Amino acid sequence: MSALDPRATPGYPGAGKADAAALTEALGPEISEQQERLFANGRVNPESSPRLLVILQGMDTSGKGGVIRHAMGMVDPQGIALTAFKGPTAEEREHHYLWRIRKALPGPGMIGIFDRSQYEDVLIVRVESLVPVDQWMQRYEEINAFEAEVAASGTTILKCFLNVSFEEQKLRLAERLTGPDKYWKYNPRDVDARAKWGAYQEAYADLLERCNTDVAGWHVIPADRKWYRNWAVAQLLREHLIGLNLTWPEAEFDVAAERARVAKA
Amino acid sequence: MSALDPRATPGYPGAGKADAAALTEALGPEISEQQERLFANGRVNPESSPRLLVILQGMDTSGKGGVIRHAMGMVDPQGIALTAFKGPTAEEREHHYLWRIRKALPGPGMIGIFDRSQYEDVLIVRVESLVPVDQWMQRYEEINAFEAEVAASGTTILKCFLNVSFEEQKLRLAERLTGPDKYWKYNPRDVDARAKWGAYQEAYADLLERCNTDVAGWHVIPADRKWYRNWAVAQLLREHLIGLNLTWPEAEFDVAAERARVAKA
Repeated sequence: MSALDPRATPGYPGAGKADAAALTEALGPEISEQQERLFANGRVNPESSPRLLVILQGMDTSGKGGVIRHAMGMVDPQGIALTAFKGPTAEEREHHYLWRIRKALPGPGMIGIFDRSQYEDVLIVRVESLVPVDQWMQRYEEINAFEAEVAASGTTILKCFLNVSFEEQKLRLAERLTGPDKYWKYNPRDVDARAKWGAYQEAYADLLERCNTDVAGWHVIPADRKWYRNWAVAQLLREHLIGLNLTWPEAEFDVAAERARVAKA
Repeated sequence: MSALDPRATPGYPGAGKADAAALTEALGPEISEQQERLFANGRVNPESSPRLLVILQGMDTSGKGGVIRHAMGMVDPQGIALTAFKGPTAEEREHHYLWRIRKALPGPGMIGIFDRSQYEDVLIVRVESLVPVDQWMQRYEEINAFEAEVAASGTTILKCFLNVSFEEQKLRLAERLTGPDKYWKYNPRDVDARAKWGAYQEAYADLLERCNTDVAGWHVIPADRKWYRNWAVAQLLREHLIGLNLTWPEAEFDVAAERARVAKA
């Protein structure tokens, strides 16, 4: 983990913060066009249509919400299925930990977004010893098998770890204590989690290594600079949409006949 | 219905199409700020937090999707709960018609958007005689009682009827037959519905009158000009958010103590 620099800006084509908003926005039209193709395929050929699943993980204040607002916010709301996974409910606890994850997988033509995910079951669960060690240890393999199955059924998986530094997190927590427009984002428990930073970093290092598979590799996004983080995720979204090689679906009706019907209608 | 001009632009502050995109976008920051306040209240005080429900109705091609994309698309995806009501599923048909509507009501701090709604149960159901007349006739009162209950429980209801003309619908259907990037939006059944235009207009006239209550009045949006339609709904969204008189929720922790904790963390 220590080799990954949270302030780096790999691949960024601009000069810095000043041009980031414009460069991110410039990705909008292509993301929009590709997303519409995806959506169109979902409508016309639901059984065979691809889907895209974006998984966002990161420590508190790493900017999962900011990415959803600024990068995912460029997409038509009709094409997005967002799920924020909190601590499991009583009903969810009665099921296998992947039960609620499966239920939230995106439908045909949709872009699913997971704000936290199955990885919490090898993060907080591990750090807080919520299940015995032999139980969470087998989850890495289970998650890999699960993701392989999801990928095989036509869902492209984009996993982003938003990598914020210990120092930057402190600044962001302090920022949330500067006024009533920020207080609601602050949770005293975030400081408790911060006290276990090392254990969380270890847990992240493990899942980044053990669950970095061919069908669902991890992207580590340096997240100390918000402008870079938003651009980088938007750029990954664009790349993955283009990678679907989407064409417009063919008409499932006789176009000439329908033109004649409309002309007379 | 004939008194309502689908090409009118009531309240529009600009000159016309040329300044519409800029005027609509200019509403964004205030909508964003108000939505964030709403969301914050939902987080901190879920039991007492207001909610907003936007109901979109209109004939095919009237632009429900366009409004969601262009007006609702200005809102943080995290604050939106969108439901598109299609023909009821087998499970939904086994329940009262309001069952699936209730299930989709927005949670605390959320903006719910209904793309079609309970009003389909006095529209297509009436025009196609899917239930006996005495059954749909009582639904106006049922819907009014339902909406009164929803409003009383803290949800502000904004109902928009997107009013497109018979002539404009023809142009838009023809437009959907101009190329593969549009075909997927076309459904041959839309022409069947168009053949029953008069019956649908009558059904709309009835629900606009009978379900125009104090707690949930109808807004008739002239929808022949897309740029006006998008601006008008964004403007209504802004007004209704401001009408909630939202303040930032108070901190539920000792701010000074937490500042000290973060400083030492």
